[in-house]
Amino acid sequence: MPEAVGIAILGAGNVGGGVVTALRDASKRYARLAGRDLEIRSVLVRDASRERVGVDSSLLTTDFDRLLNVDVQIVVELMGGEDPAHEYMRHALEAGKHVVTANKEVMAKHGSELLGVAAAHGVRLFYEASVGGGIPIISPLSRDLLANEITAVTAIINGTTNFMLTAMANDGVDYDEVLAEAQRLGYAEPDPTADVEGIDAAYKLAILCGLAFGLEVSLEAIDREGISGLTANDFTYADELGYTIKLLATGRLENGNLVASVRPTLLAHSEPLAKVDGVLNAVQIEGDLVGRVLFEGPGAGAAPTASAVLADVLELARDYVFTDRALTVPAALSVASVLPAEVHRSRSYIRLTVPDRPGVLAQIAGALGERDVSIASMIQLEADESAGTADLVLTTHEAEGGALRAALDHVERAGVVQRVGNVLPIAGAANSGSMSGAGR
Amino acid sequence: MPEAVGIAILGAGNVGGGVVTALRDASKRYARLAGRDLEIRSVLVRDASRERVGVDSSLLTTDFDRLLNVDVQIVVELMGGEDPAHEYMRHALEAGKHVVTANKEVMAKHGSELLGVAAAHGVRLFYEASVGGGIPIISPLSRDLLANEITAVTAIINGTTNFMLTAMANDGVDYDEVLAEAQRLGYAEPDPTADVEGIDAAYKLAILCGLAFGLEVSLEAIDREGISGLTANDFTYADELGYTIKLLATGRLENGNLVASVRPTLLAHSEPLAKVDGVLNAVQIEGDLVGRVLFEGPGAGAAPTASAVLADVLELARDYVFTDRALTVPAALSVASVLPAEVHRSRSYIRLTVPDRPGVLAQIAGALGERDVSIASMIQLEADESAGTADLVLTTHEAEGGALRAALDHVERAGVVQRVGNVLPIAGAANSGSMSGAGR
Repeated sequence: MPEAVGIAILGAGNVGGGVVTALRDASKRYARLAGRDLEIRSVLVRDASRERVGVDSSLLTTDFDRLLNVDVQIVVELMGGEDPAHEYMRHALEAGKHVVTANKEVMAKHGSELLGVAAAHGVRLFYEASVGGGIPIISPLSRDLLANEITAVTAIINGTTNFMLTAMANDGVDYDEVLAEAQRLGYAEPDPTADVEGIDAAYKLAILCGLAFGLEVSLEAIDREGISGLTANDFTYADELGYTIKLLATGRLENGNLVASVRPTLLAHSEPLAKVDGVLNAVQIEGDLVGRVLFEGPGAGAAPTASAVLADVLELARDYVFTDRALTVPAALSVASVLPAEVHRSRSYIRLTVPDRPGVLAQIAGALGERDVSIASMIQLEADESAGTADLVLTTHEAEGGALRAALDHVERAGVVQRVGNVLPIAGAANSGSMSGAGR
Repeated sequence: MPEAVGIAILGAGNVGGGVVTALRDASKRYARLAGRDLEIRSVLVRDASRERVGVDSSLLTTDFDRLLNVDVQIVVELMGGEDPAHEYMRHALEAGKHVVTANKEVMAKHGSELLGVAAAHGVRLFYEASVGGGIPIISPLSRDLLANEITAVTAIINGTTNFMLTAMANDGVDYDEVLAEAQRLGYAEPDPTADVEGIDAAYKLAILCGLAFGLEVSLEAIDREGISGLTANDFTYADELGYTIKLLATGRLENGNLVASVRPTLLAHSEPLAKVDGVLNAVQIEGDLVGRVLFEGPGAGAAPTASAVLADVLELARDYVFTDRALTVPAALSVASVLPAEVHRSRSYIRLTVPDRPGVLAQIAGALGERDVSIASMIQLEADESAGTADLVLTTHEAEGGALRAALDHVERAGVVQRVGNVLPIAGAANSGSMSGAGR
C-alpha cells in the first residue's frame, strides 16, 4: 500500500464529529477508493482537555501553527464563521496544503481571494459542503453542466426557513408560533437572525452565482428580504390565487446583468420548487442546452454535510495529493454588474389594508396605472367592521420594483391605503387561473 | 494557445447534430474552459454524400479505420445500438483514444469489459449521457456521493413511459389511446417495445447498479415488467388508495444481495418521485451518510444529451488529454448475487375480477393468509350485473412475491377468482391512509 494521506481537521463540533466518525467507520472502503489510507493526524479544538468521542486525545491541539507542521496534505475546515477560519484557510493554502471547507460565509466573502491563493500555490480548495449540505451542487456546476451557458439559478437553500414556511402553509399558524416550534425542535438557533433574515441564503447564493455566472457578488448587491413579515393571511391569500410562498434565492442573467435576490416569493403549486417541503433544500439550474435540472436533498445535518466534505477529501486523496496533475487555473471572477432592486422586473403580490369605502380600488388602480403597473388579479376580503377597514390583495403583471414602490408610497401618503402589508415577487410562468386583466 | 484537441464523432443523427452545433456555437467559451481549442476532425456517417447542417462535408467519412488514423484524442460515440458501436468503441480505446458515449445498451451489456480495456490502455471511457439525458447522475455517483455506502437507487428513467403514465393518471385514458398520442407527438417509436416493456429502463438500471453497488447486473437478472397491461381502472383504484403509478427502476441491497426490478409501481402521492411528471426523468439515491438525494431533469433530447456529452468532452480536454494524470484504475465489478423475483418482498396492489357472490373474499383472504400474505386494505367495486362479476382491489402488507403468486394461482385455478388483473408492487413508506388490517 502506498504512503497514507495525512488529514488535519479544524473544529470538532457536530460536522467535525460526523467526518471523524465516517472516516473511522468506512476506513477500509475509503482506502480502497483512494488507493491509500486516510489518516487523521491532527484536530484543532478550542479546548483540548475535553474528550471527544472517536477522536484520539493525542491528536487534539489548540495551536494552529503546530498543526501545519504535522505531516498533513489536506486541511478540512469545519469551524464555521468568518474568523479565524478565513485566516487559517489562507495560511494552510500558502503552506501548500489542499483545503476542504463547509464554510459558506468565508467562501461567499473571500472565495475569490482564496481560490487565487490556492492556484498560486499549486493546491486545491474544494467547498462542496458550503451550499446545500449533502446535495451535490458545487461539483455539478463546476463540471457536469459546464457545457451550458447558465441563465438562472433558483434555490431553496435554507432549511430552517423552509421548515417554517411549510408549517405556515400547511397549518395556518403565524410566524411567531412557528419560530418557537422550530427553536424547540432545534431547527432554528436561539438568535434566528441569519436564517430568517435570509443572510445564510445570501451567502450561499453568492457562492452559486460565482460558479454559475463567473461573477463575484457582494452580499450588499443581493436584494434581500427575510420571512419575519409574513402572516398566516398571506398564505391563505396566496393559496386562493394558486400559489405557495417560499424563501427563494435567485440569480438570473438579464441582458448580461445579474439580478440577484433572496426574498419570500410566490410560486405556483405546479412548480417543482413549490413541492420542496420541510427542511429539504433544492437547487434548480437553467442552462441553454440542458433546460432545467433540479437537485434536491438534505441541506444540513452532520452526516449529509460529512458526505459532501468526504467526497472532496476522497477526490483530493485519489487524484491530487500524490500525483503531478496539471492545475487548471480557474478563471478569475468578474465583478458583477448587479441590477439594483428598483429595476428588477417581476409580477408581484400585494396585500393592503384599506378603508372600507367606495372608490378606493379605483384610486389604487389609477396610481398603479400611471406608473405602468397593471393589475392581474384581485381578492377583496370581508371588512373588519369595527375598524372600518378591509384587506385587499392584488397581483400585478410584470413591472419594475421601483415603479410599484412609488405607486404604493403615493397611495399610502394620500391616505387611500391605510397600510401596505407585504409586497412579494411571483416567480415562474404566469398562472392562468388568475382573474387576468381585472381592474386594469 | 496550446495544441488543439482533436475530436471524432461517430454518428451525425439527432444527438450528433446537437453536439456539433454546440461545439460550433460555444467554441470560444469551450476553448477558454479547456485551455485549448476543441476541433472536430472527423464525423463517421453511413452516407457521406448527404449534407449535414453545420458539418463541413470534407470531415464526413464512412470508414471507421481511416477515422482512427486522423489526429484525434477523443472519440464521441453517438450511433446508438449495440453493433457496430461496441466494436468501434473497443477499437478506439485500444488505439489509445479517450471515448465518450451516450450508449446505454453498450454500457449495460459491455461496460465492464470496455472500462477494463480503457484502463489497460491508459485512457478514459466516460458515459454521463447514457442515463438520464442531461441530468448529472453518473458523475454524482462516481464522485460526489462516493463517501456513502449506497443502499438504494430508485428512478424514473424512461421519458416515453412516464409521459404515458402521467397522461393515464391525469386524463383517465387507456393504454392504447395514450400510446397513439405519444407516437403522434414523437415521444414513442413506431415500434415502442424497448420503452413500454421496460427494456430501455433496464439498460439504464444495470448501469446505475454497476456504479452504485459495484455489481455487474445482467439484464436477465432484472425483474422486468412493462406498462402495456395497465388499464385506466388501475389509476382510478390506485388514486382512491392514495397512490399514483410510475414505471420505477429500483436497485436495492438487502443483506448484501441485490434486488433489481423495472416494474409499474404504486407510489404514495407524497413521495418525491410521484411528482415527477411528463417526459421528465428523476433518480433518487439513498446513502448511509447523505440520506436521500433526488436529481430531476430532461431525460432525453438532442440539447440535454449534448450537455452531458460535452461535459465529458470538456473534462477530458481539460484534465486528461495532454496531461500525465495518473490513472485511478476502477475496481472490477463483482458479479451480483441478484435475488430472484420470487423472493422479492414488497407490499402489493392486486386487481381481481371475481364472481359477484358471497364468500369470495373469505376464500381469497384464506388463500393469502395460509401463505403469510396479509391484506392491508380493500376496495370492493360495483358489480357488472350483466357479467355477474365485480372488480376487487386489494393491497397487502409486505410479502414474498412467490407466496403471493402461489396464492393467486390457487384461487384462480379453484375458480374463486375469474381473472387476476394487475399485481403491482407498492414503493415507499406504508400509507397510513389505508384501511389497515381489514380482512386479515
